[in-house]
Amino acid sequence: MILEAAVLPVIPARVAEFEAAFAEAQTLIAGMPGYRGHELQRCLETPGRYLLLVRWDSVADHEEGFRRSPAYQEWKRLLHHFYQPFPLVEHFTLACGGFAANA
Amino acid sequence: MILEAAVLPVIPARVAEFEAAFAEAQTLIAGMPGYRGHELQRCLETPGRYLLLVRWDSVADHEEGFRRSPAYQEWKRLLHHFYQPFPLVEHFTLACGGFAANA
Repeated sequence: MILEAAVLPVIPARVAEFEAAFAEAQTLIAGMPGYRGHELQRCLETPGRYLLLVRWDSVADHEEGFRRSPAYQEWKRLLHHFYQPFPLVEHFTLACGGFAANA
Repeated sequence: MILEAAVLPVIPARVAEFEAAFAEAQTLIAGMPGYRGHELQRCLETPGRYLLLVRWDSVADHEEGFRRSPAYQEWKRLLHHFYQPFPLVEHFTLACGGFAANA
């Protein structure tokens, strides 16, 4: 399993609208092959700053399976206009630890 | 529950040494009051880049309980010399989703 992580800089005036759009958009990733789970985390120190964590079986499940799917076009339509600037998306593999408690 | 998150920029020549030190240091946080879990994630795109995720019952468990403890002095001694520059540590609260699969 790999972790997709991105810090999302959302226009502060639009955070409520963004969270409502994300609540709709999250059903798009949850249905994809290789999807293992996700969290949208809101920064306590900086308004408009979010951390998106998505767990996939492989990088290909994210970059090929999801990003080349019709679901990704809908994901973009729902979410990408809230970001300024557009976020850097990276992938990670577990080095140590690994217990991730549910909220 | 809150999420502590920090991107750790580790000197690339010292990643093996850092991971060994972290394997020792992680027992220090795991024993703290309010600790819920942690992951050290290694970036697949950028050597020396790590994402540390630690779950606590509250920000105070991290900033007061842990950072003011003798265990934190040992944590610093084991880990802080691997970072260049010193990382920004932030706290997050769950906005959406929340399923976090184990590795």
